[in-house]
Amino acid sequence: RYVPADHTRVAFNGGFWKSWTETVRNVTIPTQHMRLDEEGFLEVLDFDKPAGPLARPIQPSGLSMQHFFDSDFGKWIEAASYTLKNNPNADIDAKIDAIVEKLEHGQMADGYLNSWFIRREPEKRWTNLRDLHEMYSMGHLLEGAVAYYEATGKRRFLDVMIRAVDHIIDTFGREPGKLRGYDAHEEIELALVKLYRVTRDPRHLDLATYFVDERGQMPSYYDEEARKRGEDPASYVFQTYAYSQAHMPVREQTQVVGHAVRAMYLFSAMADLAFENDDESLKSACDRLFDNLVGRQLYVTGGLGPSASNEGFTREYDLPNETAYAETCAAVALGFFSHRMAQIELDSKFTDKLETVLYNGALSGISRDGEHYFYENVLESHGQNRRWKWHYCPCCPTNIARFITSLGQYFYSTKADEVAVHLYGENAAELTVGNAFLRLNQKTEYPWNGDVGISLGLEQPKHFTLRLRIPGWCRDAKAFVNGEAIKLDIVKGYAAIEREWKDGDEVRLAFDMPVDRLYAHPAATEDNGRFALRRGPVIFCVEEADLGTEPQRLRLPSQGEIAASFDETLLGGATVLEGDALEADASDWQETLYRTEPPALKPRRFKAIPYHLWANREPGAMAVWLHEK
Amino acid sequence: RYVPADHTRVAFNGGFWKSWTETVRNVTIPTQHMRLDEEGFLEVLDFDKPAGPLARPIQPSGLSMQHFFDSDFGKWIEAASYTLKNNPNADIDAKIDAIVEKLEHGQMADGYLNSWFIRREPEKRWTNLRDLHEMYSMGHLLEGAVAYYEATGKRRFLDVMIRAVDHIIDTFGREPGKLRGYDAHEEIELALVKLYRVTRDPRHLDLATYFVDERGQMPSYYDEEARKRGEDPASYVFQTYAYSQAHMPVREQTQVVGHAVRAMYLFSAMADLAFENDDESLKSACDRLFDNLVGRQLYVTGGLGPSASNEGFTREYDLPNETAYAETCAAVALGFFSHRMAQIELDSKFTDKLETVLYNGALSGISRDGEHYFYENVLESHGQNRRWKWHYCPCCPTNIARFITSLGQYFYSTKADEVAVHLYGENAAELTVGNAFLRLNQKTEYPWNGDVGISLGLEQPKHFTLRLRIPGWCRDAKAFVNGEAIKLDIVKGYAAIEREWKDGDEVRLAFDMPVDRLYAHPAATEDNGRFALRRGPVIFCVEEADLGTEPQRLRLPSQGEIAASFDETLLGGATVLEGDALEADASDWQETLYRTEPPALKPRRFKAIPYHLWANREPGAMAVWLHEK
Repeated sequence: RYVPADHTRVAFNGGFWKSWTETVRNVTIPTQHMRLDEEGFLEVLDFDKPAGPLARPIQPSGLSMQHFFDSDFGKWIEAASYTLKNNPNADIDAKIDAIVEKLEHGQMADGYLNSWFIRREPEKRWTNLRDLHEMYSMGHLLEGAVAYYEATGKRRFLDVMIRAVDHIIDTFGREPGKLRGYDAHEEIELALVKLYRVTRDPRHLDLATYFVDERGQMPSYYDEEARKRGEDPASYVFQTYAYSQAHMPVREQTQVVGHAVRAMYLFSAMADLAFENDDESLKSACDRLFDNLVGRQLYVTGGLGPSASNEGFTREYDLPNETAYAETCAAVALGFFSHRMAQIELDSKFTDKLETVLYNGALSGISRDGEHYFYENVLESHGQNRRWKWHYCPCCPTNIARFITSLGQYFYSTKADEVAVHLYGENAAELTVGNAFLRLNQKTEYPWNGDVGISLGLEQPKHFTLRLRIPGWCRDAKAFVNGEAIKLDIVKGYAAIEREWKDGDEVRLAFDMPVDRLYAHPAATEDNGRFALRRGPVIFCVEEADLGTEPQRLRLPSQGEIAASFDETLLGGATVLEGDALEADASDWQETLYRTEPPALKPRRFKAIPYHLWANREPGAMAVWLHEK
Repeated sequence: RYVPADHTRVAFNGGFWKSWTETVRNVTIPTQHMRLDEEGFLEVLDFDKPAGPLARPIQPSGLSMQHFFDSDFGKWIEAASYTLKNNPNADIDAKIDAIVEKLEHGQMADGYLNSWFIRREPEKRWTNLRDLHEMYSMGHLLEGAVAYYEATGKRRFLDVMIRAVDHIIDTFGREPGKLRGYDAHEEIELALVKLYRVTRDPRHLDLATYFVDERGQMPSYYDEEARKRGEDPASYVFQTYAYSQAHMPVREQTQVVGHAVRAMYLFSAMADLAFENDDESLKSACDRLFDNLVGRQLYVTGGLGPSASNEGFTREYDLPNETAYAETCAAVALGFFSHRMAQIELDSKFTDKLETVLYNGALSGISRDGEHYFYENVLESHGQNRRWKWHYCPCCPTNIARFITSLGQYFYSTKADEVAVHLYGENAAELTVGNAFLRLNQKTEYPWNGDVGISLGLEQPKHFTLRLRIPGWCRDAKAFVNGEAIKLDIVKGYAAIEREWKDGDEVRLAFDMPVDRLYAHPAATEDNGRFALRRGPVIFCVEEADLGTEPQRLRLPSQGEIAASFDETLLGGATVLEGDALEADASDWQETLYRTEPPALKPRRFKAIPYHLWANREPGAMAVWLHEK
């Protein structure tokens, strides 16, 4: 079992992540608080004032977005807290304390804490776990409380939330007199594991275990709960509890179904519990579900959940590009799940996907200026997709923010005599291996360049194994220790170098990084006759801003060079790809829509940019999957 | 100006349309009445009983499908009436009379007639023309009344509807004290022209003219009406009156927008009024809108309106295949519009599209057994699209039924000394040219074969011009009169043969009918890198039922023979296409979703069937647009 690095001890002082982490800290975090304030999210905590009109109306499911406003400032507190240790900020600190004070003031005597139900419908608390996100909201507050406590040592928020958890323990469980329920929107489960790791109170872990194990047991709690409300369970808006992964016990599930974010939060909690409880059958379920996702249901960008109608999965291999839902939250949460799996079993199949979302389908969710967002991350557009300042349901902005403000933890893991390097990108880390203190500096232009220099700082020589992930995208990797080539001993995608390391040792990795044409499985029919461009971990796209026309009109040769170069003028600097293409010529079509003569194809050049940077310039069409000639 | 043939004098006693017309008459019409009865559509007329619970709940727009149940039995009466003259049927007759009796009984003293408002919300009548389909329903009753009167000579229903129209005339118009409204769902306009053609009462034509001219005038009636209801006009669910083609006066419209069926019903009425009022500027608007539709917004099948969200148009060239809405009603109504335009100006650009919908995107809306339907006519499927027995909103079944039971009128038009032949397909017609009686028999296997024999029967020789449509799909057409080749004199797609015709004259047309590969305009990006197969007027598709796998996996060569043959075992007999293809092989992919090696392509044969016959066998994937290799 590995333990992730302390993210506060991994500094991105140069390279790719420097400006992203600075932007999120300096722009994203403060502007998100402004938006929460402007949009009335914080007013829900003015418990002494009468509740005003709804900021968000009730949906056909009975849910208003306002039911889970708590989750949004909870996630913002979490994201902001991750920045505070290394960058103390009295203003942010005061803003969090103000929220905590209101939460504490509003908390009910029995520990119950949810701004909607306390203020608007106290008599309805715990009557509709199927639709109303009650514990989802509490889970995000709990994650925020843990993060704030760890950043500042201040216990007030944590204590509020421990009381709230005590109340949940009193209310739910298998014991007589308790409700055998669990929230349809998973979240509290993984938050409880975080709490347990702070408190080491076994009741906190047990509650998470109960929620995961109770999920999907029949007869369904949601049927019973609906009948208690006087409703016919068959009238459920989403028709099947697969929407919430509650259609069968989680250990029996083999196909990833339903709402994508719910699925990833559940699987993250399952991985946490497999880790904490040493639970092999839960680990097996996670493996099966991960493999199903990656093998049949994942966009090449790491996006997931193709459909807007259930914000989630449909059938296997259904990966439409223009209507891809691929919510930012889901990609971030796949990062959570992948990362947790890698702590149990060091296998690059997990960390390869962590890297994919990080450089593609999650990062695309935030603009280069740090204050505009995508909720849906399409892989093809005719220009109608614009980044927004805030969203009707703004779950994604704080999710990508907390991912990036805690990024360091994803780069490294350690155990007694091992250090695992999962991700590449310039940074300076402080780790503990066994009882030794290790400084580990990555010097690299990754992901633009496959050369990575790693220098080790040690007070005294130390025998341990350095495990270096050899990226799945790389077909030719070399490693050197102090200038000397070494033979790679690769197990599950990680090259092990076991030796006595000493201060000043240098490891150099050379990952060959050609431009690849990627083809999709024939059953993923949307991509038939097309390929996507990848270089290193980065997926590229063609944007109308460069092409002057819709990229869908291109035909790209299946052979021939596509050159990579660094363009320092592009949005702070990025690698671009350029090559020869053909363009379907519309000039001789006039008002003809169909004809027997194929369109003429005229030669031209094309340029592709990293997918995560799309829609940061003038609006226009975009495509990841390009027609092959 | 041309006048369409009397459909009761065009008999389909052989060839392609024989079994379709028989099936619709013998199966479709009786089963549709059963469905209307089973589903409670006819109970809404039990005016003396208290109104029961809603059969269809209220939508967010405020509309229940039940608001317009009248339209469904109105359209069924119309469809059924068209069969009665040549095939008297006491049972159908009695069923219609029963409905008429109830309608007459329920009609209000002032002539108002709408089952919803009379029975449920009399105080709300005429308060929401924007959402509630009040005159749409009356329009369909009116079309039914005209058809029933013409078929049987019975005036009772017609008189009921004339009183209803009188009430509308008293209520709406520019005169002081009247409401300056018009229904957001067009339909009454074209129904009023039909009524006028029976009554020759100028007030009936004037009312239609008023509705069309008032449409889209600013300030909007719908704004004013919403304020009267105490609603904010800005809260309109569909956001723009373009949804109802009411965003600007109709003569100023140049792009086809909004709900597709509404648009086609409006344009049909505009064409009717251009014809009746000799209105050049209205005719010009129709031309512009027709050209915009055909040049930029029409599926190759004649389907139209790509989006489910507004049941209509989005942006130009947006023609997604798998999510095509392409409602059956819209294709049928494009038939109406095209046909009306051809009466004003004999141009095959109109009748080519009439033929396209007839053999493809409209006919696909009904199953070969005559009692299952498609509402949405997708051009690509993974097998999830099944024909249904009845639909939640069952507007399409009766629409395709009335199209087919009155089919004869679309084949021919006449004026003083001209006969125009618009469509081909075996039939025997009785026409009047000048004061002469003309029998015109088509002997042909069309659309499976391009040879058409036309024999003329005349009591005495008669000088007139026979105008024969040379189909737009045909690149090599020959014509023979009494065995002798003639030089084709083609004007706007019609070959004119002017001569003294005598009894027993024979015209033979030979339309070369190769298999064509059709390519789409490069801006129609969904079809880039693909082609569709067409032979004669028929668009083909590949179905999993023949292929054994998803047709999306095929790559078809851009050259090489595709052979056509008649398969008499296929759903009553149809031409099929067969040729060589390659199939993307998934056998060496296992659980890999993306890889750098393209899929292997293995040679195989493929078969294509007419698009209108798809989904009549076991469920499976289907594609019209096939990947080109």
